[in-house]
Formats: sequence, structure tokens, C-alpha cells
Amino acid sequence: MLFSVVMWNFLQWIDSVKQSSLQPAGQLSGTETNPRWAHAAAEAAEEFAAYDCSGHGSVLLDTVPTNGEIVCECHACFTGPSCAESVPDCLAQIDSGDPVMYEYYWKQNAEAGTLVTPPWYRMSYREGMNMGTGCTLALEKQIRTLHKMVGNAAADGKILLVSSGSSPLLLSIMQALSYQKQASYSAVAAAPFYELYRRQTDYFGDNRFAWGGDAKLFAQDPGNAGKDAMEFVTYPNNPDFRTRQPTLNGSHAHIIYDFAYYWPHMSAITREFDEDIMTFTLSKVTGHAGTRIGWGLFKDPSLAALVQMMLVTNSLGVSHDAQARATQLLRAVTSTYLKDNGPVPFALPAAQYAKEGRIFHYGRAVLERRYKWLEQIFAASDRFSFLKHDPEYCAFFGQTLEPSPAYAWVYCNRKEDEDCYNLFLNAGISLYRGSAYGVTDRHVRFSLLKRDSDYEVMEKYLLKLVAA
Amino acid sequence: MLFSVVMWNFLQWIDSVKQSSLQPAGQLSGTETNPRWAHAAAEAAEEFAAYDCSGHGSVLLDTVPTNGEIVCECHACFTGPSCAESVPDCLAQIDSGDPVMYEYYWKQNAEAGTLVTPPWYRMSYREGMNMGTGCTLALEKQIRTLHKMVGNAAADGKILLVSSGSSPLLLSIMQALSYQKQASYSAVAAAPFYELYRRQTDYFGDNRFAWGGDAKLFAQDPGNAGKDAMEFVTYPNNPDFRTRQPTLNGSHAHIIYDFAYYWPHMSAITREFDEDIMTFTLSKVTGHAGTRIGWGLFKDPSLAALVQMMLVTNSLGVSHDAQARATQLLRAVTSTYLKDNGPVPFALPAAQYAKEGRIFHYGRAVLERRYKWLEQIFAASDRFSFLKHDPEYCAFFGQTLEPSPAYAWVYCNRKEDEDCYNLFLNAGISLYRGSAYGVTDRHVRFSLLKRDSDYEVMEKYLLKLVAA
Repeated sequence: MLFSVVMWNFLQWIDSVKQSSLQPAGQLSGTETNPRWAHAAAEAAEEFAAYDCSGHGSVLLDTVPTNGEIVCECHACFTGPSCAESVPDCLAQIDSGDPVMYEYYWKQNAEAGTLVTPPWYRMSYREGMNMGTGCTLALEKQIRTLHKMVGNAAADGKILLVSSGSSPLLLSIMQALSYQKQASYSAVAAAPFYELYRRQTDYFGDNRFAWGGDAKLFAQDPGNAGKDAMEFVTYPNNPDFRTRQPTLNGSHAHIIYDFAYYWPHMSAITREFDEDIMTFTLSKVTGHAGTRIGWGLFKDPSLAALVQMMLVTNSLGVSHDAQARATQLLRAVTSTYLKDNGPVPFALPAAQYAKEGRIFHYGRAVLERRYKWLEQIFAASDRFSFLKHDPEYCAFFGQTLEPSPAYAWVYCNRKEDEDCYNLFLNAGISLYRGSAYGVTDRHVRFSLLKRDSDYEVMEKYLLKLVAA
Repeated sequence: MLFSVVMWNFLQWIDSVKQSSLQPAGQLSGTETNPRWAHAAAEAAEEFAAYDCSGHGSVLLDTVPTNGEIVCECHACFTGPSCAESVPDCLAQIDSGDPVMYEYYWKQNAEAGTLVTPPWYRMSYREGMNMGTGCTLALEKQIRTLHKMVGNAAADGKILLVSSGSSPLLLSIMQALSYQKQASYSAVAAAPFYELYRRQTDYFGDNRFAWGGDAKLFAQDPGNAGKDAMEFVTYPNNPDFRTRQPTLNGSHAHIIYDFAYYWPHMSAITREFDEDIMTFTLSKVTGHAGTRIGWGLFKDPSLAALVQMMLVTNSLGVSHDAQARATQLLRAVTSTYLKDNGPVPFALPAAQYAKEGRIFHYGRAVLERRYKWLEQIFAASDRFSFLKHDPEYCAFFGQTLEPSPAYAWVYCNRKEDEDCYNLFLNAGISLYRGSAYGVTDRHVRFSLLKRDSDYEVMEKYLLKLVAA
């Protein structure tokens, strides 16, 4: 008897468990017996995509049925089997930098961005991966093509390292710098700064690297003269989207440029940077935060090798599935811009750019509109200060453009509004608070990267608050 | 003018760059204008798979053309555009635990394992992810179904955490344990042990956790009595595939069970473990090392929450693409066993099990054959000692089965053969050396997880060495 009694009981149990809605396993068949082996999965994917979710949700390949029925996964503030109902008094979540505004774009570019992965695709740890870069040759080519096309960073002659998002890369850079010099480092960033730098240092730094606080205060303290330090320069800056120079200088200062947002939809490309250490993330290029692909460009091969050693010791390499997805998406992004060189009129609706597969035009149109809209709302009140940016010439687009930041940075002016975060939260709007970025809670960050529906939900709350 | 002169020059440059062989971007089209948006990618994938690579290679979706031609990516020791030529005097690489033996299996199960990912699939960091587990509901269900079906570990009532392979999970567990107690820990494992435990501790432990060496020596030292310690128990053990009990005990000892190999193709399932901390990896279940999916089961919710905080601070979550692949593959693995309950005869050729979609039968047949073959070769010589295992009763298969370990562990007996690793290397066989596992270099590890062709290459070298 193959199965024990326990197994038979289990098999009865499993019958009662609802399976997920993944494509049906169907008749088992291999490439030899069925040369059309990929079609069943393609048809299942198309069928899921055709579910009516009212434009406010999706059925995905691993959507788990509810009570045996396939129902849509709804966006925030929508509910019901086809997401047709609004959630009353829904909290507007304008907090996270989750770039879900690009979901609409990719639904318009379904064919160009679709990936079909056969089950034997890159099963190995090592085959098809360049140990020097941690990625496939195809992904390396796409990343280098992207930088060359956009002109934001000089990739030629630099070592490329790919990581599982930029977070472990930032950590590995800190570990590698302190290991390289066998010295204890301070990590700093000018406030307001991206919270993760401090959090990684607090948890993992120990006595090799420690959080040194606001770079401006660190630099002013004579006791820090000659101390080894790493400064994170987020350019443009998260949360306030200002562009700025490093605070530290000299041979003891290592500058880590975080260029997460230095792409044409969010920032004017004013120059091609050529720094020692530069980091990037797919998340803010194509919107695929969930794929977890980041990368770094390094001038110093010995530092790059140490960073790679830290990355590999941490996690034995980057998911090949994530790499394949990034390769396909970046190819879709670059192919339109490289193929069709005709001039594209500005000021078209964002949806038109999505249809044409021009993601940088699309992103810029959406973000510029949201920034202007918020600016106008806040202009009606002196209770709040809204940080304004100037138009800038963008070398990628070849013209001067209005600001299109990924975040808006707002300050509560009234004496009693010390906790600006809670003021907005009580008004129905969830934001990120200033203290997360090393400044006071009079500051709040609005994400502009979410879905149109999120801002529609926010609008009435915000107008009411501003009018109060 | 949209593009600057620099851009125009660049566009000429890019024309000269060979693109990768990813599916053609085609006419841009969205789900509304083209309901068959997934078919072009499916057809491209089928076309690549149909390339003739002589059974010794593949064309994959991101295979980069050579001189403008699509050529196969060849397995080790094969070359030529269709991998038809053997590399003369090729080094037999029997070292890595890369489970590429399952590639054949998955080519026979193309339809069941194929994944079609539309470009809007789970772009978010957070949506569709349970922050408590770090994974989708669908993946959690598949993992729990797998454990219940196999009976190797009691998952019910335990906290599940998914990570990017088991490596960052092991590290995060060490970080969480030392953080939880705010104490300095020693990490130990009984030699021979998996090298990564020591390497992670050396690089990242600092003064919070430090490598304490061989658990047996650690336990014998009276100076260590009452010291906080973590012991890794790999079960069965990498590299020697013995099963063993923890060395440490008492309230100061935390046992981390690494069950990477405790699956029915590699090990008899002798009992359902129900330990405080248990870790697993997809790599050794389905063979998808390159996908980077690992998981842990935890009894203590507060420890699990700390581990998850460490994982998230390290890398902000697990790639959704990797999760989707794991979900699809595990569904393919479990669906055959759950659907078709009839008795399956043993001792069929492995290829037959592959055709039937029975991965545990397939893996066991391949590994048992390789183990026996090596055992017989080494039996002809007293120069080497080959570690033998006993047949054991497996609750999953419901019968007593011959050993089918993932690794063979060999010892060089002759006085002059102190460096057993180099002895084999000079004979044309690359293995892993004993000192990597905390024992002498008289020991070497043979991986049994590679392709048939790797062992064919090794055979003549090995027969010659054993006869010498």
C-alpha cells in the first residue's frame, strides 16, 4: 500500500480545502508530447484579466477564491465581488511610496510586458549568472541600455551589482566599507532623510557602523573631524524632493548616492552623474516594487567585490524570476523610446502616453497633475505650507518642465498643530510623519504615486481640512 | 525637439547593440484592445523551447544572442551552437548542491509548471502580502498543504515566514534571538556542518553573536556552561547526510532545525517534527534554487515577529515573482500526489516518474541510483572510505527504502592523501573540501544533484583514480 491510513485521512481533508485559482494543472504534458505547452497558462491568465473588477481591482494568477468563488482583489476603499462598491468613510492612504499608479500603465501595455516562464527556467543558483554582477547578461544589458538612454548616470566602465531591491544593497555597502577599512564608521544623512538608512544601521550596524544622525549637525561637530563616515545623498531627496550636494567631504567621507528617484518621470535629468557609489531601484522606474530588483554602479572594483560578497553571504543571490521580469519590463520601457524617435507633443492626457507605451511621459503627466492639484488646494490656506519646486530643464525630454515629484512635503504652521500627522489622520488622511525622516512631526509626506481613486477619496477630506 | 543631439547619437549607437532574444515587443496592446495579449509571449517561449540543444542545453527567454545568432546555453562540458560537441578533458563539476537534476523532470512537466505573469501582477510592496508571513495567501496555502501531504513537519498552529531563500532567514533568526534577549550568543553546529552558518556569523555577527565552533567541543568546555547558544541542526546533515540529535540542551540552548533536505526524495520521512524553529527551502523540494524562496515555521509568535522585522529591515520583503513561481511549482508537485491515489510501483525508471509528474519518486529513483553506483565504485578500493547509510522506513512512501542522499561523503585513507580535495581535482573531478565543513581535507563531498551528463564525464576519471 502506497499511502498509510494517515495519508488517506489527509486526502479526504484536502478535498475540503479550496485550491487557489492558479491555472489548471490540466493533463500533464512535456515539451515533446505537447509543443503548445505554454498556451493553457496564457489562456488562464487572459481569462483572469477579463474578470470585471470595475476598474478598481484585479483577479490575479494566485488570487485565492472566497467561499469557492473567484472574486476580485479590490483596491483600497473598494469592496464587493467586482469592487463596484465604495467603502464608506474610507481612510485615504496617501502614505506609502508604493508606485501603484503604474498599474494602469501596464494594463495598457499587456503584451509588451508579459513574461512566460517555463518551469525549467534558470533553476540553478549559478548557471546563467555572472558572479561579478549577480545577474544575467540580459539584465545587465538592459540596465546599461536604460542608463545610456536616460542619461542619468554614467554606467560605462563601472561595475554593476544587482540585488534584491536596493535595501540589501545599501546595507551591504555599509558593511563592505567598514570591512574594507576595518574601521568603525558613522552613517549620516542630511535631514529630512529616508528612514531605512537609520533603521538598517540601528539593527545591523553594531560596533562597525553606527547612526551618526543629521549630516549637517555631524559636520558641525569638531569632534567628528577626521572620523570615517558614510553619507547617504538621496537625489532628489525622499521625502522633500529637493536636490542637494553632499554635506561631508574629504578622504574620510564616503558618499553613497541613492538615485531611486532620478528618472525622467519624477525628476528633471539635469546631468549625467559619475560618482563612486550610485544605487537605483526598479521600483521607481517601472513601478514594480514587489519584484525587488535594485542595482548599484561602482567605480572601485575591490569595493564592488566586497559588496557582492556581503550580498551573497546574506542571501546567495537574486531571484532569477525577479531578474527575468525586470529584463522584460525594462525592454518594454526602452524599446518604445529607442524605436520611435519622432517628437511627442507634451500636455497630452496621461492615458494617451500609456497607450503609446511611453512610461516616462505617462509618469510625468500623472505626477505633474497631482502636484499642481495639491499645490492649488494648499494655496487656499495659510494653515499649511506646501513645498514648491521650480521648473527645470530636463536633458532627456529636451525641454524645461514643470515639477513632477513623487512626494509632496507639507508643514503645519499653526502653533497647536504640532502633530501634523495626527491632524491629517483624524481628518481621514493617512500620511507619513516627519519624525520618521529625522525632523519634527510638523512635517508630513504625501505620496503622489498611488492610484487616482486614492486621491479622489482624499479630496473631500482635504478640502474640508484646508477650509477649516 | 524631443531628443538632444546626444540622444540622436545614442540612438545610432543602440542600433548597433544586439538585443536579447526576449519575446518581441510586437504591437503595443492592452487588455482591452487585445484580449489575447498573453499569446505572443507564450508562442515565443514555445519557440525557444523547440530549439535543438541536443538534450544538453536550453534557449531561454533571456538568452543573449552570440554574434546576432540565437544559440543554446550549454550544460557543463558541452559546446557548439546546439551543444552537440563534448568539451575534451572537461573538468567534472560534482561540487555544488545546485539541484539541476530536476531540470529534466520539469521539461517533462512543462504545462503544469508554466507561469504567465502579466505586467501589472503584484507591483506593490504591500498589497496581496500578509505582513505576518511575508507572502501571499496562495503561497502560504501551498506550503501548508505540502507539509501536511509529506508529513515532515507539523505546520498547523505555527507561524509561517517566507524569505528570499533560507539564507537570509537563518541570519535573521540569529539576529532576532540575540535581539530578543539583548544577549551575546554563540552559534554552533556539530562538525561536519554547512559552511554558511559560520560565514554569516563571521561577517554579520559582530559582538551580538559569534561563531562558537563545533557544537560537540563547545558542549564539552565547562566554561560554556550557562552561556546562551544557538545550535544549527541540519537534518539530514549537509554534507554527510547522517541524521542526528542536537548536541546542546537546557534553557540557554536554542535549536534551529534546518530541514532543507528532509523531503521524501532525499530522506526517509521517519517522523513529523514539531520543533520551535524549523527552516526549509524550495531549492531542495522542486529544484528551483535560482528562485530564492525559503521559509520557516515558528512556535513563538514574538520571536517570529522579530525575525520578520529583521527580514524586512534587511530587504523590504520577498519578490512577488519568486512567490508566484513557487506557488505554481508547489501546486504542480502536490496536485499529482493529491489527485491520483492509486499505488505506484517502485523501481520504475526515473524518466517514467517524471512523465507521471511524481517528483518525489523521480528524485528518489535518480539519487538512489547514483548513490549505489558511487558506492560500488568505491567498494573496489581501500584507498577511500565511502559513507554508507542504512535503508529506512519512510512514512510518506509507506515502505522501507534504500538510501537516496543528496550528497556522498568520502574519506581519503592513505597517509599521503591528506588533501583529498586536490587529489580528486588533479584527477579531473571538482568536489567540495572537508575544511569548508569544519573537518579535515581528508573528507570530500560529492553532490548527487547534478545532471546525468556530469556523472558520465566523471566516471572515467573516477574509475582511473580508484584503480590507481
